[in-house]
Amino acid sequence: MSNRSMRKREAILQAATELFLTREYSGTSMEDIAVAAAVSKQTVYKHFSDKLTLFREVALGSVEHVSRDFQSQVASVAEAPDVPAALRDLARSYVNAVMNPMLLRRRQLVLREAGRFPDLARTYYDSGPRRTISVLSTAFARLAHRGELAIDDPRTAATQFAFLVVGEPLDTAMFRGAGRRRRRSELDALAEAGVEVFLAAYGRKRETKRPRGPGNANR
Amino acid sequence: MSNRSMRKREAILQAATELFLTREYSGTSMEDIAVAAAVSKQTVYKHFSDKLTLFREVALGSVEHVSRDFQSQVASVAEAPDVPAALRDLARSYVNAVMNPMLLRRRQLVLREAGRFPDLARTYYDSGPRRTISVLSTAFARLAHRGELAIDDPRTAATQFAFLVVGEPLDTAMFRGAGRRRRRSELDALAEAGVEVFLAAYGRKRETKRPRGPGNANR
Repeated sequence: MSNRSMRKREAILQAATELFLTREYSGTSMEDIAVAAAVSKQTVYKHFSDKLTLFREVALGSVEHVSRDFQSQVASVAEAPDVPAALRDLARSYVNAVMNPMLLRRRQLVLREAGRFPDLARTYYDSGPRRTISVLSTAFARLAHRGELAIDDPRTAATQFAFLVVGEPLDTAMFRGAGRRRRRSELDALAEAGVEVFLAAYGRKRETKRPRGPGNANR
Repeated sequence: MSNRSMRKREAILQAATELFLTREYSGTSMEDIAVAAAVSKQTVYKHFSDKLTLFREVALGSVEHVSRDFQSQVASVAEAPDVPAALRDLARSYVNAVMNPMLLRRRQLVLREAGRFPDLARTYYDSGPRRTISVLSTAFARLAHRGELAIDDPRTAATQFAFLVVGEPLDTAMFRGAGRRRRRSELDALAEAGVEVFLAAYGRKRETKRPRGPGNANR
């Protein structure tokens, strides 16, 4: 796809997101979307064969993309030398990715249209939030194996990590709409506070109760 | 209100919840609701002057009620002699209250209609989730003052407690609909695992690193 064509595609997706949110799926036509994106109706149809296809792309397109980025960062945390620092970095980029205004709008849209498109809401959930938990579980199992975290149940720990880091800002945004944007510093502080709680429960400092042996003298 | 009248009111609220969810607000009439609740249209109007009033009651009625119950339980936790046990009890009743199927349906409805009724979504959020965090903050501040929890920032700790306990089941339910109900034992286990993480971060066992003095000999 040419750059120009890519830019048009993005403009269509963005216009469609806003129209679906303000007028609902049923109240939005392909023509409305063309007008809002400042392209011809023909261009809209060139990129998306019908309204349902466009809606699916709006709802699911970016979540899969963001998931892939997140996945590779999590994989590197599993092998990081300084695990607490790597978890803090991960938490900050996680909350900032999830709170991206366009992603938030798409998540709202999926929830709002979950009655009309229950399968789409399920697919969104499986390829977004649920996949994140799975990827985190795998990393935490590896970190437990490396002796870096004291975790018996990686899936529960992954769920707790996720909700400690993104739970509140995400939930608040679903009810409050796109209105108030959280400052990056506020999100970072939330993420770091969440990681502290997580490390208090699962971090290596538990071991400091035991006498220090040669194996952990340089911590 | 007589018992019979109360039962009719409940039947109307329940029928309205399901209809608003399946046909949306705009696609539901007072007549539909009367038919589904097996009452006369006149009875519906006797209880609710118009569709918007009924919708508001469906969306906000129970959240305020549940909040009040929760509030009094939290207040007693603040003065409990065995704080870890009281927090476990609180967490279990919190997650089970929030996951009540009728409440979940109403929460879904508020999210689905948040585009049409942004003020209502905000009011819901303030009288439900946000109020819960406030009430928990007050209790945690008191527990920190009593020396039972080591908390510097009660509001952050309250948010973390809430999302550790109800975050995942609530979020999953919003995407997956009323389909799969979580077993009570599963919710209890989740709640307890959340409390363990919370106590690892904020519980008194931090103090066990210090030598025991007479003041805490009987723990």
